[in-house]
Amino acid sequence: MIDIQGQKDQRGLGIEYVGIKDIRVPLVLRINGKKKFDTIATLALYTNLAPHERGTHLSRYVEVLNQHRSYALSDIILRKIVSQIQKSLKTTIVQLEVTFPYPITKVSPITKKAAVDTIDCVILANKNREEFQKSLTVKVPIMLLCPCSKAISKQNAHNQRALASLTVVSKKNMSIEESTKLLEEEASCRLYPLLKRADEKYVTEYSYDNPKFVEDYVRDVAIRLKKHQSITSFTIRCESYESIHSHNAYAELSYNK
Amino acid sequence: MIDIQGQKDQRGLGIEYVGIKDIRVPLVLRINGKKKFDTIATLALYTNLAPHERGTHLSRYVEVLNQHRSYALSDIILRKIVSQIQKSLKTTIVQLEVTFPYPITKVSPITKKAAVDTIDCVILANKNREEFQKSLTVKVPIMLLCPCSKAISKQNAHNQRALASLTVVSKKNMSIEESTKLLEEEASCRLYPLLKRADEKYVTEYSYDNPKFVEDYVRDVAIRLKKHQSITSFTIRCESYESIHSHNAYAELSYNK
Amino acid sequence: MIDIQGQKDQRGLGIEYVGIKDIRVPLVLRINGKKKFDTIATLALYTNLAPHERGTHLSRYVEVLNQHRSYALSDIILRKIVSQIQKSLKTTIVQLEVTFPYPITKVSPITKKAAVDTIDCVILANKNREEFQKSLTVKVPIMLLCPCSKAISKQNAHNQRALASLTVVSKKNMSIEESTKLLEEEASCRLYPLLKRADEKYVTEYSYDNPKFVEDYVRDVAIRLKKHQSITSFTIRCESYESIHSHNAYAELSYNK
Amino acid sequence: MIDIQGQKDQRGLGIEYVGIKDIRVPLVLRINGKKKFDTIATLALYTNLAPHERGTHLSRYVEVLNQHRSYALSDIILRKIVSQIQKSLKTTIVQLEVTFPYPITKVSPITKKAAVDTIDCVILANKNREEFQKSLTVKVPIMLLCPCSKAISKQNAHNQRALASLTVVSKKNMSIEESTKLLEEEASCRLYPLLKRADEKYVTEYSYDNPKFVEDYVRDVAIRLKKHQSITSFTIRCESYESIHSHNAYAELSYNK
Repeated sequence: MIDIQGQKDQRGLGIEYVGIKDIRVPLVLRINGKKKFDTIATLALYTNLAPHERGTHLSRYVEVLNQHRSYALSDIILRKIVSQIQKSLKTTIVQLEVTFPYPITKVSPITKKAAVDTIDCVILANKNREEFQKSLTVKVPIMLLCPCSKAISKQNAHNQRALASLTVVSKKNMSIEESTKLLEEEASCRLYPLLKRADEKYVTEYSYDNPKFVEDYVRDVAIRLKKHQSITSFTIRCESYESIHSHNAYAELSYNK
Repeated sequence: MIDIQGQKDQRGLGIEYVGIKDIRVPLVLRINGKKKFDTIATLALYTNLAPHERGTHLSRYVEVLNQHRSYALSDIILRKIVSQIQKSLKTTIVQLEVTFPYPITKVSPITKKAAVDTIDCVILANKNREEFQKSLTVKVPIMLLCPCSKAISKQNAHNQRALASLTVVSKKNMSIEESTKLLEEEASCRLYPLLKRADEKYVTEYSYDNPKFVEDYVRDVAIRLKKHQSITSFTIRCESYESIHSHNAYAELSYNK
Repeated sequence: MIDIQGQKDQRGLGIEYVGIKDIRVPLVLRINGKKKFDTIATLALYTNLAPHERGTHLSRYVEVLNQHRSYALSDIILRKIVSQIQKSLKTTIVQLEVTFPYPITKVSPITKKAAVDTIDCVILANKNREEFQKSLTVKVPIMLLCPCSKAISKQNAHNQRALASLTVVSKKNMSIEESTKLLEEEASCRLYPLLKRADEKYVTEYSYDNPKFVEDYVRDVAIRLKKHQSITSFTIRCESYESIHSHNAYAELSYNK
Repeated sequence: MIDIQGQKDQRGLGIEYVGIKDIRVPLVLRINGKKKFDTIATLALYTNLAPHERGTHLSRYVEVLNQHRSYALSDIILRKIVSQIQKSLKTTIVQLEVTFPYPITKVSPITKKAAVDTIDCVILANKNREEFQKSLTVKVPIMLLCPCSKAISKQNAHNQRALASLTVVSKKNMSIEESTKLLEEEASCRLYPLLKRADEKYVTEYSYDNPKFVEDYVRDVAIRLKKHQSITSFTIRCESYESIHSHNAYAELSYNK
């Protein structure tokens, strides 16, 4: 059967990204070598295409993704997976994106009731010839309370849900839990799936004592991250679904050592 | 050329809805016969299909929608449009959905600064033989402040953006502005695109004086609507993007005279 | 601490749906009592509210959902869960929605290569006093090839991805696999995550031999379902992302014994 | 009233992007100085924030956007708007994003029937001190027909809707119509809102004569664009909603003179 993709291309143009996206597969996430967690991940896998190659055999991308259903946050495992993909697909550049929901059990602050919350995570692993890079992104909903509204009003302050996102490139592995904890500790208040009345009183008062603009928030997270020796670069994004407007406030701060 | 759609069907099954959806066309909205407003609407047009008909000629649906680019909220105009569609498509049942963004100018409460906000609206017009019905849905973002959080906390109360939606079937036309005004007046506070500091102080304090659960909100809107003699039926929905949780609170109340 | 939700309401209006939505929790799906499958589900839980009750205690909804992390498609288990919720929340009506991605392994038609595809499912369980009802919805992407385009063109026919959805209320349990199989068998062709060239030739030719309009498709699925003695009611929806238009074709057929 | 945002910041960290997003306003689009077109645009406006400034006054962003409701694709007008914003907000960097639906009338190839289709466009204008840059992105749904499927099958070939996107930075203005035309001419076939049977025969046969992979497509568009002397840089993206898979094929090609 004729191999159209394998034909020689005469147009003289390489392509940066060729591949598949929005493929969903069950995934076992290994953390610290032992804990495991089952979820459905959405994957994307791209390579480059040399000027003389007409097309990529996309079925091989699906095959390769079906061979690796057990992922880990550790650089060693990810580096191995991406290298195997690079070898299987016979390409110099490989980019793998693994997007998945991740459950975190939270305990309410006063009544100590446990319940599960779920956050979205993205592992992005690149290999360009021998150079490997991995980033971890966590997207954590938080509460922000407006310092201006508090300062000028007799009582109360407008507050709202905001989505904080942190992307980290690090020499050591920063766990999903660590990233989430850091994003939550710098918020006006962290969110809880389950709050009894005593807890609700606590979070209402706690947030009033910790007013922050999106600008304050990204800076406070950045200051914490800059102390980590192992972090090479990071980006913090915060989008606040303002309770007094129908549009959103936004801030973004990046750092590269 | 053979007419496959026009073939006789032997399976003996009628179909309730056949048609096209997610087609976007520019639309002139006439209000009160004079004011006009240009927007891009997303349309859906469905008919029924008799058991003996194999298929619908969907190109006629597109033709018919391209003939009617000037819509109005008035029953007279809409009834005329839907009747013409019914005639063109030679079908007993017609359902037309017109979804569009609608700009509303708002003036801030203290400094009186004007700016534009945009809400989503849906006109749904049905004709079944001679019976015509039209509903108007407006989706208005509002602010809700939690009565429980206020009552139990020393100061402050959690508040957040919520999406209120109202669907009305009415003998007289209820304008988009009237529906929006009603949904906003019953909120803890309405939203404004533009608030200077004096305005922000006002809305912060105003919302603290008007705490409402989603349950309170749908009831208070319902009480207002029940007084309108011309309203045949309505549904109020309210989804609150809780600032203390990552999930939403929801209430829905329907009424049929 | 004051119980605001527990206050007596004077407005004299009951509310049909009160509850929480968009809460994501890990879920173990038991099938036929033995097989289990881990996923992250998105849940909604609603009850009614009597006219004299001011508010619902939404934290109890979260508690109740966190107690039941192991769901099953079987009516016995679901009936038990919904009854327990009804009892815990002290309400006459309970509606539980469980939305989750579900992996299905598919084997390519010629080269017999296995790979995983993922479909979206919704279990909807209602209890109104003693009356219990459950429906299962599966949303399966399929291929449709246009009979008109094939009949009038010298060669080729436009074809495209379509989303087929089937909601079934049944006295016996219809499994996700059965519903999916039925939706796929009536398509112009089912989709596969992994196709080598011999497989691609097969699906291209197979679909050309099975042209179907959305109208044909919903009827053919309906005819198959009507033969099932145990099925009480069903709805088939099919939305086709036409490859020759930027809008979609749509058909919907419902049946109630 | 105290100005919290105006306070001096001690954290020593500048912020790259601060501003508002997802605000929708009616917009008059001027093209070539004369034609005008009304739509509802979704805007985002960001600036940088110096290390010594605590916060941005976001109400000024809304004021500034409400002053400029008449946008144009011409560099002269956009440069003027962005400069005025830079001045009003007293900031060195300004980034303005204007996203809007844009109607295009298409005439069917054989029966010459006209109907409207709508595409999504994004104007991105940056000013960093004196340096100004503008890009125009158009997102055009097209049809792609698979060359492999055609070559290996007795008859037919799988085809599908794909979304092509082109971002251009150019010294001369490239109109939305020009970009759209180019993206459509390189497709297996362009899409039409309205096709009668003679037209449907034409597009089915035309696409069969023009098979293209996503890889072919981005290269063929690139070759056309490289001939434009005035173009400084471009990115072409193509995502194909494969009719034989539930996942998508993707290619992306960038060029910088």
